[in-house]
Amino acid sequence: DFLNAIEEVRPAFGVSEDELAMCLQGGIIHYNDYVNQILRDGQLFVEQVKKSERTPLVSILLHGAPSSGKTALAAKIAADSGYPFIKLLSPEAMVGMNEMGKVGYISKVFMDAYKSTLSVVVLDNIERIIDYVPVGPRFSNSILQTIQVLLRKQPQKGRRLLILATTTSRSVLQQLDLLHSFDGELGVPNVGTHDELAKILKELGSFDSREIQGSLRELESITGTRRLGVGIKKIILGVETALQDMDKAGRFASVMSKAVREQRAALGEFE
Amino acid sequence: DFLNAIEEVRPAFGVSEDELAMCLQGGIIHYNDYVNQILRDGQLFVEQVKKSERTPLVSILLHGAPSSGKTALAAKIAADSGYPFIKLLSPEAMVGMNEMGKVGYISKVFMDAYKSTLSVVVLDNIERIIDYVPVGPRFSNSILQTIQVLLRKQPQKGRRLLILATTTSRSVLQQLDLLHSFDGELGVPNVGTHDELAKILKELGSFDSREIQGSLRELESITGTRRLGVGIKKIILGVETALQDMDKAGRFASVMSKAVREQRAALGEFE
Amino acid sequence: DFLNAIEEVRPAFGVSEDELAMCLQGGIIHYNDYVNQILRDGQLFVEQVKKSERTPLVSILLHGAPSSGKTALAAKIAADSGYPFIKLLSPEAMVGMNEMGKVGYISKVFMDAYKSTLSVVVLDNIERIIDYVPVGPRFSNSILQTIQVLLRKQPQKGRRLLILATTTSRSVLQQLDLLHSFDGELGVPNVGTHDELAKILKELGSFDSREIQGSLRELESITGTRRLGVGIKKIILGVETALQDMDKAGRFASVMSKAVREQRAALGEFE
Amino acid sequence: DFLNAIEEVRPAFGVSEDELAMCLQGGIIHYNDYVNQILRDGQLFVEQVKKSERTPLVSILLHGAPSSGKTALAAKIAADSGYPFIKLLSPEAMVGMNEMGKVGYISKVFMDAYKSTLSVVVLDNIERIIDYVPVGPRFSNSILQTIQVLLRKQPQKGRRLLILATTTSRSVLQQLDLLHSFDGELGVPNVGTHDELAKILKELGSFDSREIQGSLRELESITGTRRLGVGIKKIILGVETALQDMDKAGRFASVMSKAVREQRAALGEFE
Amino acid sequence: DFLNAIEEVRPAFGVSEDELAMCLQGGIIHYNDYVNQILRDGQLFVEQVKKSERTPLVSILLHGAPSSGKTALAAKIAADSGYPFIKLLSPEAMVGMNEMGKVGYISKVFMDAYKSTLSVVVLDNIERIIDYVPVGPRFSNSILQTIQVLLRKQPQKGRRLLILATTTSRSVLQQLDLLHSFDGELGVPNVGTHDELAKILKELGSFDSREIQGSLRELESITGTRRLGVGIKKIILGVETALQDMDKAGRFASVMSKAVREQRAALGEFE
Amino acid sequence: DFLNAIEEVRPAFGVSEDELAMCLQGGIIHYNDYVNQILRDGQLFVEQVKKSERTPLVSILLHGAPSSGKTALAAKIAADSGYPFIKLLSPEAMVGMNEMGKVGYISKVFMDAYKSTLSVVVLDNIERIIDYVPVGPRFSNSILQTIQVLLRKQPQKGRRLLILATTTSRSVLQQLDLLHSFDGELGVPNVGTHDELAKILKELGSFDSREIQGSLRELESITGTRRLGVGIKKIILGVETALQDMDKAGRFASVMSKAVREQRAALGEFE
Ligand SMILES: Nc1ncnc2c1ncn2[C@@H]1O[C@H](COP(=O)(O)OP(=O)(O)OP(=O)(O)O)[C@@H](O)[C@H]1O
Ligand SMILES: Nc1ncnc2c1ncn2[C@@H]1O[C@H](COP(=O)(O)OP(=O)(O)OP(=O)(O)O)[C@@H](O)[C@H]1O
Ligand SMILES: Nc1ncnc2c1ncn2[C@@H]1O[C@H](COP(=O)(O)OP(=O)(O)OP(=O)(O)O)[C@@H](O)[C@H]1O
Ligand SMILES: Nc1ncnc2c1ncn2[C@@H]1O[C@H](COP(=O)(O)OP(=O)(O)OP(=O)(O)O)[C@@H](O)[C@H]1O
Ligand SMILES: Nc1ncnc2c1ncn2[C@@H]1O[C@H](COP(=O)(O)OP(=O)(O)OP(=O)(O)O)[C@@H](O)[C@H]1O
Ligand SMILES: Nc1ncnc2c1ncn2[C@@H]1O[C@H](COP(=O)(O)OP(=O)(O)OP(=O)(O)O)[C@@H](O)[C@H]1O
Ligand SMILES: [Mg+2]
Ligand SMILES: [Mg+2]
Ligand SMILES: [Mg+2]
Ligand SMILES: [Mg+2]
Ligand SMILES: [Mg+2]
Ligand SMILES: [Mg+2]
Repeated sequence: DFLNAIEEVRPAFGVSEDELAMCLQGGIIHYNDYVNQILRDGQLFVEQVKKSERTPLVSILLHGAPSSGKTALAAKIAADSGYPFIKLLSPEAMVGMNEMGKVGYISKVFMDAYKSTLSVVVLDNIERIIDYVPVGPRFSNSILQTIQVLLRKQPQKGRRLLILATTTSRSVLQQLDLLHSFDGELGVPNVGTHDELAKILKELGSFDSREIQGSLRELESITGTRRLGVGIKKIILGVETALQDMDKAGRFASVMSKAVREQRAALGEFE
Repeated sequence: DFLNAIEEVRPAFGVSEDELAMCLQGGIIHYNDYVNQILRDGQLFVEQVKKSERTPLVSILLHGAPSSGKTALAAKIAADSGYPFIKLLSPEAMVGMNEMGKVGYISKVFMDAYKSTLSVVVLDNIERIIDYVPVGPRFSNSILQTIQVLLRKQPQKGRRLLILATTTSRSVLQQLDLLHSFDGELGVPNVGTHDELAKILKELGSFDSREIQGSLRELESITGTRRLGVGIKKIILGVETALQDMDKAGRFASVMSKAVREQRAALGEFE
Repeated sequence: DFLNAIEEVRPAFGVSEDELAMCLQGGIIHYNDYVNQILRDGQLFVEQVKKSERTPLVSILLHGAPSSGKTALAAKIAADSGYPFIKLLSPEAMVGMNEMGKVGYISKVFMDAYKSTLSVVVLDNIERIIDYVPVGPRFSNSILQTIQVLLRKQPQKGRRLLILATTTSRSVLQQLDLLHSFDGELGVPNVGTHDELAKILKELGSFDSREIQGSLRELESITGTRRLGVGIKKIILGVETALQDMDKAGRFASVMSKAVREQRAALGEFE
Repeated sequence: DFLNAIEEVRPAFGVSEDELAMCLQGGIIHYNDYVNQILRDGQLFVEQVKKSERTPLVSILLHGAPSSGKTALAAKIAADSGYPFIKLLSPEAMVGMNEMGKVGYISKVFMDAYKSTLSVVVLDNIERIIDYVPVGPRFSNSILQTIQVLLRKQPQKGRRLLILATTTSRSVLQQLDLLHSFDGELGVPNVGTHDELAKILKELGSFDSREIQGSLRELESITGTRRLGVGIKKIILGVETALQDMDKAGRFASVMSKAVREQRAALGEFE
Repeated sequence: DFLNAIEEVRPAFGVSEDELAMCLQGGIIHYNDYVNQILRDGQLFVEQVKKSERTPLVSILLHGAPSSGKTALAAKIAADSGYPFIKLLSPEAMVGMNEMGKVGYISKVFMDAYKSTLSVVVLDNIERIIDYVPVGPRFSNSILQTIQVLLRKQPQKGRRLLILATTTSRSVLQQLDLLHSFDGELGVPNVGTHDELAKILKELGSFDSREIQGSLRELESITGTRRLGVGIKKIILGVETALQDMDKAGRFASVMSKAVREQRAALGEFE
Repeated sequence: DFLNAIEEVRPAFGVSEDELAMCLQGGIIHYNDYVNQILRDGQLFVEQVKKSERTPLVSILLHGAPSSGKTALAAKIAADSGYPFIKLLSPEAMVGMNEMGKVGYISKVFMDAYKSTLSVVVLDNIERIIDYVPVGPRFSNSILQTIQVLLRKQPQKGRRLLILATTTSRSVLQQLDLLHSFDGELGVPNVGTHDELAKILKELGSFDSREIQGSLRELESITGTRRLGVGIKKIILGVETALQDMDKAGRFASVMSKAVREQRAALGEFE
């Protein structure tokens, strides 16, 4: 089973540019300073792996609320690394595989990575990769243990590896004892204020200034605050839905206010 | 197992009209404004997927009490979309398959959908598809995780996909952490009042006006209210059973009053 | 596995008269009016399926205490339907199969039923079919889900199906969320009074009038009441055991009084 | 798996005399009236199955403390029945089989029984057959369900079957909902008094009268009572151990007093 | 699986002297009277099996703290029995087998034993053979049930079998309902006092009298008592470790005092 | 499965120097006396196995906080033993194997070890080898039991084996009843004070004296103490990360203070 699974995986040397591009469809909007900080820290680890003799393996966890932009930021750091081997390891690529098939696929990706002198692997959405569900909780311990070990497994002499993982559930990883297998962490925040939101809307270019101001005023009157706390991905989706409506600005305010309400309800979970 | 399962699935390009027709056997009776509102919102998402560059994937959840008409409404939106690929993914089609067979079948349907430029997949009765039972609770985590990932998996460049899912147990999906994988939700209400019921009975044409009035009067005298809260499917069934009886009106009132009683008892569960 | 299981099942078109006959070995004694009422209601559903265009599928649950006569009554309704396809689906027929074998067998029976224009399937003893045991509780979720879906699966156009199911544990079905997959329910009572018991004994013909009176008097003196609450099947068994004894009347009274005691102890469970 | 298991089982028509003999190695000592009562009741059921038209299947449960003689008594009733087919179905015969193998073996034995016009099957030590262990509790639900159904499955027309089952854990069977699948029960008591014990020792013939009196006096002085509550099988074992010792009487008293102590400690469990 | 497992097992007729010898590497030191008592009782059961007609099967459980010498004593009784078939059934021999492989192996050993007229099987370390772990607790119910049945399975006519089992967890066996499948029990104590320890050290011959006295004085001054409660196997290990140290006597006292401390902490568990 | 797994494992006679070297990449810095003590004790056990006739098998557990240097110290003791067979058994070598594959691999390594007259096996990171996760807790009982037995299995006559195991979770091993299968334990402490840290930094040579003093002063001012409690591996990683930053000293102080904070939070877990 395991060997079959491995054979089904096509050799994956080089950089999987399509996958990275798909994660970056919405680009990276520099709507506040955190965004730059995360990218700079990412670059620091890229350098450390490239140069340090004593740390040929470094693993970093990006954690943040759903839709906050974790995958895009990890993809960006990876794409900008300039490493010869870059691989995105995502649950989407493993749809339909069984447990041992997934274990085999993941192992294969790392074995490929070890063959390159300098590699970066993005382990996207860990709780999905391990089939985690809070009822029980249930998850694949085989996959979890595989990841546990791979996060610590030193590449052979002369090979170096940077692992960038993402998760929406830092506390779940802690319960699973996975957290302190990482060498470092980067927190990814939601879009926090109306000012940041305005910057994003301007950048996206779907609304003109007047529409932006009108919409945000309406949003403030509904939510009673200029604080937001909504993920960048939801904002982009909201804009697109609003574009189908006659009353663009009104629809956007209404969609956003609903997102704010949900965010508040979920606060106990993610913050 | 997985590959076999996939091969057993016949290619399913195009529109599966028979399946949709079967879901719409009772037609769509426009007995109040919610019905129209749901269909209009559905059409909006149909447009967004067709036109927006930034959101090639949109997933919507229709939730409501048992028999409230969720499947028929999802089928209606799909049928009216005019998309070249329309597929109903229902538990009925997977009877007798084992867990990995179901995972393979579901994956195959989505892989087919990704081949069309514009597709809609109706994921009918999610809790049944994942084999959910409240005792335990038990469910197939493999199928759940497959759905989790497919709800988020971006189609390749140039392909677009609308997912319409239905459930009677919104709270179960929330516990399973599935709810916020959807981009939007549409609530489907029960038939709420005697006025709506009268409209439906008139439309169905099995009773004449006098019979309708007599039956509803009797129903009111039993339940002590003109509020109803019964699903449209149960109403249609009740009419058909009543037709076998000499005393049509009386039998219908008795069947409906029993449905109202059950509805009240179940309120804790579904509202 | 699934395909094999299906092939092992011999084609089962037509009416399985032997099976029905075995369920009706003790005949149907019309010892009170409930019995007639149940048979009449059953006939009504038989008619509805035959005639209504809008409800090609109707499913009815017969529930009652152990030995109360559920299987015999369901078999009687089926046998009297005059439908061209009648099939008894019982746990006895699946002895020795594994879980997927049972799923395959059940699916096959329904697939056969869908081939006939007019069919009735008796799903006897649901909690046994799903391998239910109260410790845990444990049961086969695969079989349960198969039944869940089959209770709702519309036959193809032009085909009609009546499902008659039996259970001793209505509350278990409710916990399993299976109950509201049925379109209707029929409660089967125990034999309630000494008068009904006397009628039955007379009908069976094993005791003469004097023996009946003597035995019932003795029974009343032991239990202190003329109420009974014992299933018809246990009564028939008691008569047969008594026939082996010299003191027929005394032995029968003693066997019945034990049954009454057990019934009282179990009341918490079944009523 | 299932078919293989069945083929491994050699045809078992006729009477398996060796097996019965092994269960009756210690003979049946008529040390009190209960013993006779149980054998007489057993014979009554033997007659009922042979003669009654309406009850072709009767199932009886013998329950009692460990070592009380259940298997020997069931074997005796079976051996004395004079039926053409007599089969002992014991856990010993299934050592080393897996779950489905056991299910297949049990099914096969009953299928053989159904081929004879008159059969008795001894289902020895049910909790062992279903692999029951109180920790959990765990047991094979597949085997349990197979037994559940076989206890109720009517033989074909013209065939009759008596089932004699034994158990040390009547309360466990009750929890498993297995108890009321039996048509009747027979309780097997321990050896209760010194008088009964004296009778047994005399019958066994290993001690002379003086030794018996001496030993029982010593036993009374240790336990402080002439009540016993020890299973017949333990008594026989104790005699044999004592025979190896110089001081036969003393050793027997000491072994018995230990058994009495254990019995008292276990009382909560078995009485 | 089962048949394969059996074929892998080489025929094991005769006496497996190497295995017994390995268990007796440290010899049997007669450091107090219990040791002799256990060996004498063992010999009594050896005689009973050989001579008694009515008890062809006797099973005895040796229980005691870890390292107390259970395996060595069971091996000694077996080796001294003079039986033609002697087999040690230990977890070490089953390393790397899966559950059904172990079931097959154990069954095979007993089947071999039944072929000899007179056999002794040592079932060493039962909780390890059944894969018991206190977390859960988890264990192999298949293996447990196999042992349960084999402890009671009568050999064919003319064959006799003595089973000697060992365990460190008598209370676990009780919870698993395994305890009263044994016909007798022998408790194996730890080395209890400094006097016994002195005898052992003298026998082992690694220390001279002065070293022994010095070491025990030091031990007494650390532990504050001349009571010990340490297993014989730990004492032998401690001596060997001490021999590597310059200060033999001091090192031995320190190792022993640690063992005493651990013993005290564990008392709740094993006494 | 098991046999396949074994064949996949290449013969591993001799010393696996590469694996040992990789564990010792950071060398052994003698930053305090504990380090020497552990190495000396290790050497003592190396001698005992080599020389003692009575203890051909000795097993030692090294336990300590994550990153404290357990693996490096075990590798050092093994490498310095001079034994002809030295094998590192680590979870990294078993990535992608299934449960029975791992059982087979582990068994194979020990079988190889038994072939050499003098062997040392390092069982690195036991809780990872047994797939332990605190949620549940879950772990592979098959692998655990294999290790349990191998820790006690005597090599054949004339063969000797030293087992060095490591763990971060001594308390977990205790709950699993694995702890007292070890003959001895060695605790590995974290780097405890600023003085020890200064010694390490000096040895590593990346900072000059002034940088060291500056960095430690800053660290003390943040944490408010000159106590540390951080693992040596984290210190080395922190140095390497700091080297990428302009402000080396500042970055190192900041990284260390974060480690100190985490250590304090985790204290409940590991101390
Ligand atoms: N500053 C930014 N940071 C991250 N993403 C951005 C930013 N600006 C624009 N985007 C766009 O926003 C989207 C973020 O979606 P992404 O899938 O990365 O979120 P996520 O947190 O991984 O979501 P999920 O929780 O579903 O995994 C991407 O399309 C990305 O191109
Ligand atoms: N306005 C309406 N909305 C929905 N269904 C309608 C409407 N008018 C008539 N119908 C008919 O009512 C029936 C609704 O049944 P449907 O199976 O869709 O309900 P459901 O909520 O999916 O039930 P379930 O909870 O069992 O899945 C269909 O036959 C449909 O044709
Ligand atoms: N009025 C009656 N209703 C039902 N059964 C009757 C009636 N009169 C006689 N009988 C006989 O009584 C017996 C009823 O047994 P049946 O197996 O139907 O009971 P059941 O409730 O299905 O039992 P179980 O709980 O074991 O499934 C049958 O032999 C049937 O022929
Ligand atoms: N009156 C008697 N009743 C039962 N057994 C008797 C009687 N007299 C002698 N014996 C002998 O006593 C022994 C009873 O053992 P048996 O195996 O039947 O007990 P059991 O209750 O089935 O034990 P277990 O609980 O272990 O299954 C048999 O050897 C039997 O021959
Ligand atoms: N009187 C004695 N009783 C038992 N063993 C003794 C005695 N004298 C010396 N020995 C030696 O002590 C050792 C006892 O170890 P053994 O493996 O039998 O203990 P154990 O209780 O089975 O341990 P474990 O709990 O690990 O299974 C053996 O090497 C044995 O030769
Ligand atoms: N005195 C020392 N003791 C141990 N390791 C040291 C010492 N000095 C330097 N080192 C280096 O520190 C590192 C210790 O890492 P190691 O993997 O052994 O830690 P660990 O405790 O096994 O970690 P983990 O908990 O992740 O298994 C190694 O690179 C080793 O070469
Ligand atoms: Mg993401
Ligand atoms: Mg529906
Ligand atoms: Mg029935
Ligand atoms: Mg018995
Ligand atoms: Mg032992
Ligand atoms: Mg380590």
